[in-house]
Amino acid sequence: MDERLQQVLDYIEEHKEEYVELLRRFCRQPSVAATGEGIREMAGMVYEELEKLNAGPEMIETGGSPFIYAQIKGDVDRTFGFYDHYDVQPVDPINEWIVDPYSAEIIDGVIYARGVADNKDGLVTRLCAVDAWQKVHGKLPLNVKFLFEGEEEIGSPHLVSFAKAHPDMIQCDGYVWEGGNREPGGPAEITMGVKGLLYVELHAKVSEKDAHSMNAAIMPSATWRLVWALNTLKDQEGNILIDGFYDGIPPISQAEMEALKTDVFSEEASKEILGIDEFLYGMTGDDLLTHLYYKPTCNICGITAGYQGEGSKTVLPGKASCKIDFRLVPGQDPQRILGLLRAHLDKHGFSDIEVKCNSGCPAHRSDPEAPFCKAVIRSMEKLFNEQPCIQCTSGGTSPMYAFCADTNIPAAMFGASSETANIHAPNEHLAVDAFIDMIRVTATVMHEFAVQE
Amino acid sequence: MDERLQQVLDYIEEHKEEYVELLRRFCRQPSVAATGEGIREMAGMVYEELEKLNAGPEMIETGGSPFIYAQIKGDVDRTFGFYDHYDVQPVDPINEWIVDPYSAEIIDGVIYARGVADNKDGLVTRLCAVDAWQKVHGKLPLNVKFLFEGEEEIGSPHLVSFAKAHPDMIQCDGYVWEGGNREPGGPAEITMGVKGLLYVELHAKVSEKDAHSMNAAIMPSATWRLVWALNTLKDQEGNILIDGFYDGIPPISQAEMEALKTDVFSEEASKEILGIDEFLYGMTGDDLLTHLYYKPTCNICGITAGYQGEGSKTVLPGKASCKIDFRLVPGQDPQRILGLLRAHLDKHGFSDIEVKCNSGCPAHRSDPEAPFCKAVIRSMEKLFNEQPCIQCTSGGTSPMYAFCADTNIPAAMFGASSETANIHAPNEHLAVDAFIDMIRVTATVMHEFAVQE
Repeated sequence: MDERLQQVLDYIEEHKEEYVELLRRFCRQPSVAATGEGIREMAGMVYEELEKLNAGPEMIETGGSPFIYAQIKGDVDRTFGFYDHYDVQPVDPINEWIVDPYSAEIIDGVIYARGVADNKDGLVTRLCAVDAWQKVHGKLPLNVKFLFEGEEEIGSPHLVSFAKAHPDMIQCDGYVWEGGNREPGGPAEITMGVKGLLYVELHAKVSEKDAHSMNAAIMPSATWRLVWALNTLKDQEGNILIDGFYDGIPPISQAEMEALKTDVFSEEASKEILGIDEFLYGMTGDDLLTHLYYKPTCNICGITAGYQGEGSKTVLPGKASCKIDFRLVPGQDPQRILGLLRAHLDKHGFSDIEVKCNSGCPAHRSDPEAPFCKAVIRSMEKLFNEQPCIQCTSGGTSPMYAFCADTNIPAAMFGASSETANIHAPNEHLAVDAFIDMIRVTATVMHEFAVQE
Repeated sequence: MDERLQQVLDYIEEHKEEYVELLRRFCRQPSVAATGEGIREMAGMVYEELEKLNAGPEMIETGGSPFIYAQIKGDVDRTFGFYDHYDVQPVDPINEWIVDPYSAEIIDGVIYARGVADNKDGLVTRLCAVDAWQKVHGKLPLNVKFLFEGEEEIGSPHLVSFAKAHPDMIQCDGYVWEGGNREPGGPAEITMGVKGLLYVELHAKVSEKDAHSMNAAIMPSATWRLVWALNTLKDQEGNILIDGFYDGIPPISQAEMEALKTDVFSEEASKEILGIDEFLYGMTGDDLLTHLYYKPTCNICGITAGYQGEGSKTVLPGKASCKIDFRLVPGQDPQRILGLLRAHLDKHGFSDIEVKCNSGCPAHRSDPEAPFCKAVIRSMEKLFNEQPCIQCTSGGTSPMYAFCADTNIPAAMFGASSETANIHAPNEHLAVDAFIDMIRVTATVMHEFAVQE
């Protein structure tokens, strides 16, 4: 281990009580984006901490929760971006919590608090790692930028407009993006991309009102039309049948296939979590992971029409609708896919079915061979003496593209959370040790990227 | 007009105040099958009126509301069955009524009351017609049987068991069945059959719980399976694709096609009521009516899965289900169709989809050439001096088969109600004159069937 880095890691070890207290203090401050509760107070606390780091914070209004931007110059002219968010999910259902969700109580070495694993932990680890570097060496090994938002939990409605308004601020050589998981006993996990998303509603309507079902003999059915339309979208083998849907998707690279070998995805555990006996089409191994990470989806999130209560009601519903999310991969622009969907429905005789777009977000995938990604991977190897789990992309979605896409900035997500951390749920929690580890990781990544060829 | 009948009709005219008061008295007594409210009291009132007619009523317990059976011998050995029901729908939403639903107030010659058009009017017209015949001639022109139930509005759960337990009671030469419509300014309508019904639920399940929709790449979808399964049931041309579904359906007879010419179905009015611009497949004329009356249907009454609220939720629902009603025609036994549906799903690879049968009821259609039917038709022609509307069957369903099917008894429905009478809804109403007309019709039908060759 490089001596300069070792000194920082030692400092972190010596000051871990102080860092844990900072995290707990942040967790005691509510900051619910959905209601606005405590958002301003939380932003103020973050701002103050950045001031202490001499990062020259700016509070930037967006119309919603403020963005907080700050930067610190370092030894080399290479720049890290730290993207995190200071907002949290609501605490409901409150009566299922075993402690006050804003008490940040520690029970058996585990902190229980809303936001402790998503994403106040991530945000605080950046502050602590920077603090440790400054305290030990007076200066950072490289430039860092802090880009903290307060609306991630409500879909980051101002992320794109912020990025467009502040192209200089978002420019950097690699993003440490929010957080990630490290399962107990498992290796560190690094995720270097996300899928995109197109969320639409399909609305079929034949009448404003429902009719007695005897009229089914003479009246068109919105529900049947929706069923027939849906059936044209995807076949039973999972092929999405929209013309052009797969166009422009780059082939899966050798590096991307190689990365699958490092994956810690447990098929048995996953089946148990999902409550299924078998994966789709009986897939296993690389085939399964290839689908999870590299294939787009067309999923029905919900469908509704007519009578849904107990027993029977003989009704012909006038309207039927469904919600669909397409998880997209690189090469699939959501607006283009939306156009293809409309064209598909028209072509198949469903011009009457209205398509309403709720949101769209392109995928972003980093080049695992990029210097930034290599530095992150090497950091984990060095710190933990084992092969990290490398995911070239998550199966999930995050608006990474807003900051990264235009200039193709690599990004990596890693963190101290876990599948069982109850994020977005009662009793969100995080082990103190895992949190401290992630401060060490952040400090190490700064070093490794600074010295990377 | 036959003089004996004319005397009866004159008597009805002279005593119409009294008959209207009987209807109002019945309407003031709640008798809600769904809650049991007033059922016993109402049954008691019906029983008393039948005693006054010397009909020797019997209150027959079924486990639910009691059946009331009574009979009176007449001049000729030919027997009418009067099937009606003394129960009503609940009055909710109560605040939409312009009068107390149990006040039976008369406004501008119209009685407003729960049950006044469904089916206390029908029940009372039988009592009044019989009363008039007795008062004028001391004896009825033919035998009558009264079969009054108190659970029609909750699906007649004891009708079949009653019929099986009392085969002698239900035996007759023709049923005057409940009620029907006569639109203002239109001819009398006679409906001589009903469609059957098979009501099922399809349940698809891949997991007890919903999953994050990123798992759509690797997890089966209950909703997609349901959509694909539904798609195999019916094509876009309306053909029901279940093997054997159309087997055993007798061809539409010449008489049945002829009857369509008497139909008063207004395409324009119907489209307005249904809220549609065009009927299914742009049908009009005989083609439309043939479908409405003589073709079976496969209708989705409701479908449900996953998230149905405002906005977006990225979820992969573990379960999906729908409710389907098949309207059946003669030759289609519901149990057989249920078996064909199960076989169809199995054959198309959907053994995993559970079929739950909520109810089944065969169709019943009278021979329009039967002496009973001819007597009913002739009665309308004589009384109203115009061609009645003859429907060999309704597009709707009623458990007529329970009484009529085994011995193929013809049945006819006619009454004083209307499309706009608000049955089952607030402000149910009936014109006093229409009610009196239907007493005259009932009295006339008794005569015409008695003298029918």
